[in-house]
Amino acid sequence: MFGISPSARLRPSSYFAATLAEGVQSFTTYNNMLLPTDYGHPEEEYWRLINGVSQWDVAVQRQVQLQGPDAGALAQMLTPRDLSGCVAGQGKYVALCDHEGTLINDPLLLKLDENRYWLSIADSNIWFWARAVAAERGLKVEVSEPDVSPMAVQGPKGEEVVASIFGGWVRDLKYFWFRQSEIEGIPVIVARSGWSKQGGFEIYLMDGTQGMRLWNLVKEAGQPWDIGPGGPNFAERVESGLLSFGGDTDARTNPFEVRLGKYIDLGVAAKVIGIEALRRIHAGGPKRQQLGLVLDGDQPTTLGFNWNEIHCDGHSIGHLTNCVWSWRLRRNIGFALVAGTCRAGERVEITREGQIISGELVELPFL
Amino acid sequence: MFGISPSARLRPSSYFAATLAEGVQSFTTYNNMLLPTDYGHPEEEYWRLINGVSQWDVAVQRQVQLQGPDAGALAQMLTPRDLSGCVAGQGKYVALCDHEGTLINDPLLLKLDENRYWLSIADSNIWFWARAVAAERGLKVEVSEPDVSPMAVQGPKGEEVVASIFGGWVRDLKYFWFRQSEIEGIPVIVARSGWSKQGGFEIYLMDGTQGMRLWNLVKEAGQPWDIGPGGPNFAERVESGLLSFGGDTDARTNPFEVRLGKYIDLGVAAKVIGIEALRRIHAGGPKRQQLGLVLDGDQPTTLGFNWNEIHCDGHSIGHLTNCVWSWRLRRNIGFALVAGTCRAGERVEITREGQIISGELVELPFL
Repeated sequence: MFGISPSARLRPSSYFAATLAEGVQSFTTYNNMLLPTDYGHPEEEYWRLINGVSQWDVAVQRQVQLQGPDAGALAQMLTPRDLSGCVAGQGKYVALCDHEGTLINDPLLLKLDENRYWLSIADSNIWFWARAVAAERGLKVEVSEPDVSPMAVQGPKGEEVVASIFGGWVRDLKYFWFRQSEIEGIPVIVARSGWSKQGGFEIYLMDGTQGMRLWNLVKEAGQPWDIGPGGPNFAERVESGLLSFGGDTDARTNPFEVRLGKYIDLGVAAKVIGIEALRRIHAGGPKRQQLGLVLDGDQPTTLGFNWNEIHCDGHSIGHLTNCVWSWRLRRNIGFALVAGTCRAGERVEITREGQIISGELVELPFL
Repeated sequence: MFGISPSARLRPSSYFAATLAEGVQSFTTYNNMLLPTDYGHPEEEYWRLINGVSQWDVAVQRQVQLQGPDAGALAQMLTPRDLSGCVAGQGKYVALCDHEGTLINDPLLLKLDENRYWLSIADSNIWFWARAVAAERGLKVEVSEPDVSPMAVQGPKGEEVVASIFGGWVRDLKYFWFRQSEIEGIPVIVARSGWSKQGGFEIYLMDGTQGMRLWNLVKEAGQPWDIGPGGPNFAERVESGLLSFGGDTDARTNPFEVRLGKYIDLGVAAKVIGIEALRRIHAGGPKRQQLGLVLDGDQPTTLGFNWNEIHCDGHSIGHLTNCVWSWRLRRNIGFALVAGTCRAGERVEITREGQIISGELVELPFL
């Protein structure tokens, strides 16, 4: 573990002081912000998400706001998912691609009204991308970052906590749908969403000065369910098959390679960026695919920054793009971005810190 | 100091193993890579840069390669600096702006030949930006990232070290000019450049598998001049008035506000992105400007992630965008992004960790 040096290039979140008070130990960086990853009790933080309720500072999920008469047109140009049926109050998980069909982000799109959309982005700069497209196409739309800081309440008991704060209506929210609300005068949007498969909500704080107050309100409300601090959980997200853009993808990954094909509508209009390339890629069949890899052995491996090359019968077939100890499976697991010809059940090998480790390809998700 | 969690979103440099062997203690992140900032002896690392020669892993200065028949046309569209006189082997420091004239990066542009340019970028994603512009304008140019890892050799004795490796011709390189070369079969580009004002060179490694070998070659060659590890030095760059994009700028900063007006040629063609906005901004006069701020007191301050608001006669006039202890001035100093009406010599105040600290605005650079 290395230290991270302070820099004004790395914006602290509205919840920064709150996470310090909770005893945050480590961060990663994401969209030029600090994302708390560790409060010093990794196993406890994992089981809290699986069995209880966990409170996360995910303000790094920054918003790209599209506002103006052409906001809807721009939103549709940016993603090859058909948005024609999307109504105000609805969110959709979308893939953004460049003109070659390469994945450049996988945000949650929120339609606030006909003239205003947010892209709650993964770790790449979509303000520049959207601005370039809007300006080059002469669209009447402003691309900006609103004062918004998401906090996640995740885990099977998350609904109880959020309902106790905002009322029973949150129980009726469908997945990815949201509603504007407030708590003690603090303006928020409440959405049923979050980067885990354990259920829960995201609360989009719309006043950055109120981070500590909102954090403590949620913390207090969650006491009956033993809420505690956490962050997007590496083990759980791998077990659940959730993609990390930039971690599990490289500079030539297309959506079909990483199980996002179901979010691509090949019939959308030609003005949608990348759609012609995506049709060609789809017709040609996938060169690579994403499977799971379960490593042999029952001792936790160390985390690393690098992808590991995967070999099968002495040939390189692709890469292990993440690797983590699964507390539930009692195995080291990860995602394998491998040749389209590979199949679940095949035995493979990786080399990690000079040691050869065998394992088996499996379908995703693990759990 | 907090820990930084490993993630495949944060690519280690070609010199990562070498910097581990040197005892790196801390990193910052930059362009989704790890930038070594601290080898455990900050004052020693500072004076080594000022008086001797320091070896830096600056592979985070990633290259955006423009290649193809329209590479030159795209390069000129991306920057409002006139490139018509730029020849192969020449580098130029340029501002990149969006269509509103807002600064989005300040790279070093290297012209390799008529059909190939590199932008050695600061901390923002210019691949997406350049690809969007190229595709929307139908240009014949490929935007990619080549296998290039810059290493800096900085300090007054840097020229001796680099000349001892590559030969006396490096002494004739003009500032920002470069030449392709090799050392023990390792292909490199040698440029007179680097993010300090202490003189030196940057060696662009063009084979990422050779990072450890190149690091050790330079380290060995530098022994007579007591070379040692370091990184872009926060104190020195502030003393020298060097801009940190994203640290000293915000989402509405234009080049004139941060002393980059001399790199803007207002007469360039209308197809250059942002030029019409920049003409309007220039005609209207600067709303903000960048000055220095010398704080009272002779004890080092702590570093922070946040900008500090600056007050003058009880009114907010702008922000202190960085703050660092200057070993040479024996004062805490920083950059003040303040109203265009402010003047050097004015007394101002900041609030830092609940304490009011007075200081004086000065012209930049400090040294």
